[in-house]
Order: sequence, then C-alpha cells, then structure tokens
Amino acid sequence: MELWYTEKQTDNFGITAKISKTYVTEKTDFQDLAMIETEEWGTMLVLDGMVMTTVKDEFVYHEMVAHPALYTHPNPKHVLVVGGGDGGVIREVMKHPEVEKAVLVDIDGKVIEYSKQYLPTIAGELDNPRVEVLVNDGYMHIHDHKNTYDVIMVDSTEPVGPAVNLFTQGFYKGIYDALKEDGIFVAQTDNPWFKADLIQNVNRDVKQIFPIVRVYCANIPTYPSGLWTFTMGSKKHDPLAVDETKIPEIDTKYYSPRLHKAAFVLPKFVEDLTK
Amino acid sequence: MELWYTEKQTDNFGITAKISKTYVTEKTDFQDLAMIETEEWGTMLVLDGMVMTTVKDEFVYHEMVAHPALYTHPNPKHVLVVGGGDGGVIREVMKHPEVEKAVLVDIDGKVIEYSKQYLPTIAGELDNPRVEVLVNDGYMHIHDHKNTYDVIMVDSTEPVGPAVNLFTQGFYKGIYDALKEDGIFVAQTDNPWFKADLIQNVNRDVKQIFPIVRVYCANIPTYPSGLWTFTMGSKKHDPLAVDETKIPEIDTKYYSPRLHKAAFVLPKFVEDLTK
Repeated sequence: MELWYTEKQTDNFGITAKISKTYVTEKTDFQDLAMIETEEWGTMLVLDGMVMTTVKDEFVYHEMVAHPALYTHPNPKHVLVVGGGDGGVIREVMKHPEVEKAVLVDIDGKVIEYSKQYLPTIAGELDNPRVEVLVNDGYMHIHDHKNTYDVIMVDSTEPVGPAVNLFTQGFYKGIYDALKEDGIFVAQTDNPWFKADLIQNVNRDVKQIFPIVRVYCANIPTYPSGLWTFTMGSKKHDPLAVDETKIPEIDTKYYSPRLHKAAFVLPKFVEDLTK
Repeated sequence: MELWYTEKQTDNFGITAKISKTYVTEKTDFQDLAMIETEEWGTMLVLDGMVMTTVKDEFVYHEMVAHPALYTHPNPKHVLVVGGGDGGVIREVMKHPEVEKAVLVDIDGKVIEYSKQYLPTIAGELDNPRVEVLVNDGYMHIHDHKNTYDVIMVDSTEPVGPAVNLFTQGFYKGIYDALKEDGIFVAQTDNPWFKADLIQNVNRDVKQIFPIVRVYCANIPTYPSGLWTFTMGSKKHDPLAVDETKIPEIDTKYYSPRLHKAAFVLPKFVEDLTK
C-alpha cells in the first residue's frame, strides 16, 4: 500500500508526496497539525492542510526570512519572530552574533513542542540562551511592546485560521510602533500566481505606514507555485542601499551576499503587483 | 466525476491538475503526446508524461529562453530554435525586429500540428514570413549548418526519448561550429532540486567548448520544483557585460531589462553546481 499526501493548493491544482510514516495528526487549540515523513522532502510539518516546512527545502524560506533584513539593519540587537514555532527562522537569526536577544512568539505551543521532537535540525536553536520563546498571541505582544525591536519577522501561516489578524493594517501599524526608530520588518506574503490580490493589498497597506517598502522572491518547491514573496517595510534603512561587499559569507544554502539585491529584482508580473 | 492529471516529477513527488477536456492522446513516431484542458493552467501540452507548456505559465519559459541571449548578442540576424515545436520561443524571437530569419527544427511534426490547433496564442508566429519551420532532426541540422547562426536556442524535452542526443558534448561541439564567430547558444537544463547532476554535467561539458558559460534561473510553476535553469554558452559576448539601460522595454510578463543580469544571480546551492 502506498500512502500519498495530496495538498490542493488551489481548487484545481496541487502537489502530492509519497509518505512513509505519520508521526502526529492532531487538532490543537488553534489548527490542524500533522507531522509526516515524506520520501522526497523528509519530515514535513503541515498546518491546516498546508505544507509549512520540510527538512529538505526549509533552508530557503528560513534563510530568506532572516538574512535580507538582518543584513540591511546595521546593528540588529533585538529581534522578534512572530509565528515560526518550528524554530527555523530563529536558527538563522542566531547566525548573527550581533543579535543579543531574539524573542519568538507563537500562539500554538504544540507547533514548538512537535518541532523540537520531530524537526531537530530546524528547531535546535530554540534552546539557545539568546532566545526567549513565548507561547502567546503575536498581535497582542506587538501592541504591548512599543519601541522595542530592531527587526520584526512575521513567519505566519496563510491568512486563514490563527494568522488572519497578521495581515491587517492594524497589525502593520502595531509593528511600526513596536520597532525602534530605524527598525525593519519583513513578512511572508504568499505567492504571485494564486494570491496576487494578497500581495497587492499588503503592499498598499504597508506603504501607508512605512517609508521604504520592498518585495523580494525566493523559490520554495513545496509551497504553492514554487515562488514565494516577502514584503519588507523599513523606517530608514533600504535593503537596496546595502554594500553587498560588506556582507560576510556565512553558512547558508540559498541566501548569499550576491543574492541580497538580486532577490529584489522581480519578474515583471510580480513587479506590477507592487506598483 | 472529476478527472485529474497527476505527474510524478520524481518517484516520490508530483503535481496534480484538474482537467475538463482531453483533446488528444497519441503515440507519435517519437513520443507520447497529450493535449488536455486544465482548470488551473488552461490548455496543457504533455510529452512523455511531462508538462511541456501551459497557456497560463508558458510566458516564463518562452521569454526566458529567448530574451537573455537575444539582448546579449548585439546583432542577432539568424536564429535557430532546436525543438520548441509549440512555437512559444519563436513568438518571443519575433519580438526582435533585427532577427531576419528564425529557423525552427523540431523532430516531431505532430507537436507543431497540434500546437497550431490547440495552442494558437503560443504557436501563432510559426506562420510569420521570417520563420522557417523544418520537421527534422535538430542534431543533424546542426551538423549540416556550419558557421550559420548568431543565436541557437535548444528548447528540448528532458534527456529521455528523442532529446537524448541534445545533452551530449558532441551536440554542444556541433552547436559551436554552427554558430558564427560571436555566436551564443542557450539550452534549458532542468531543475536544481531533482537534477543537480544534469546541471553540473552540462556546465562541465559546455565549459570545455565555450569560453563564456553562464547559468540563469526562472520560476515555472508547472515544471518540477518550480525553479528552472538555463545554460548559456557564448563565444564572445557576456550577458553580464550588457548595459541594461540599453535594453528596450518590450511586451513581456516575466523578463525585463532589470531582470537581465539579476536572473544570473543564483541561489547558493545552484551556484555551487556551476563551479
């Protein structure tokens, strides 16, 4: 008997992956959580029927959430990750020695718990003494911490379920206030093939709050369309003004100093969504 | 009853697309050909069980085969397309008024015939008077035309079936000889997630023949992993030496003057395959 995980990424298109084990299927207080072993991508975390991360391709997403912002800010000491309970973004943040403290706020403690158990190569840095892990509502945390962070990263699920508040203008305004005077935020903003409206809406909303707004892309094979966008809002520092020759060559598999600016050069149809 | 086209892109992973009509399923003299109507991607051409092109995302592949080479060569008058019987690359080549003649050589006349019938928005320029369509073996055509072309584009299937000769060093040597003294060639070279070896092998082979070898990427959602590579070999002109400000803003949806060089900045794990 062969078991396949099939995800309808739209009503009419999806991916299918052969699985060898099902470790967890559980309805948490916030979402449906599954941890499965796939033949192609290794262990896979699925929330509300959507691939969140896999051992084989997770590096793309986690590196591309963390490094463009951290190499744009000249001195990121205090970092907040909203969501991201698997710990992958935190692992990348910990590659920056100038970060004194990183706070992770995920609303669902079960994501953290099962990631530590089944995704140790991703979650391993959650126990780093520079990391504080909070099981809490990121939206509330943002509103309770004014003028606190240098960089805020929103590693959320799609705007269904617990993450629906994380795609609102009120949230972006809260992030603006939670950032210090030269702070930067970055959020995953889905894919341009099936969710063009979302990218346009976020871009319009963030532009009303942040003076510098930039969108960049990365290829994530297990995410819908294989092309993912990230939206960065910045109070002062422009990622395109960074001197790439000053970016160190750290241990990454996707991000590189050479890619820092090139990632912001968008395919024309994506560029058009940001105008 | 729902019908879905499911393609195993590897033994353990694939895509699945809901279909509303099957226009053609035929074993031609060279390959299995299917033309189907998908809900998500429009009409789709499938050869030997692999998506070749769809109406909705075809622009990425066809633009990215044609324009980087044509905007690197200063005066591309004579262009050869090997394979590409759907006509999509030819359509993009025809956007360059300096091209006096484009020759398309596809071994399988059925691909041309059915593309004209079912993919008119892709195949429409095959009747352009500047285009010559030959149903013939591209490998032989190359060897019979020394010092003839400014740009040669290899729009082949994967190296199984009729395209197996098109991934050999003998073929690249033939292309070198078929190009004029400042000629450029470009070939699709599959994806870096599942076919890293192929990219490495082609890169090694082409470097033994051409002094300038560059690899670039584009996102194609219906192709394996969503990330596709293209390998360019050039006798004289370097795509990275092009003055992007001199590239005109033509009617494209993926390629742009801004993307000309940025497309060559590779994710680190892909960059490593080209060293």
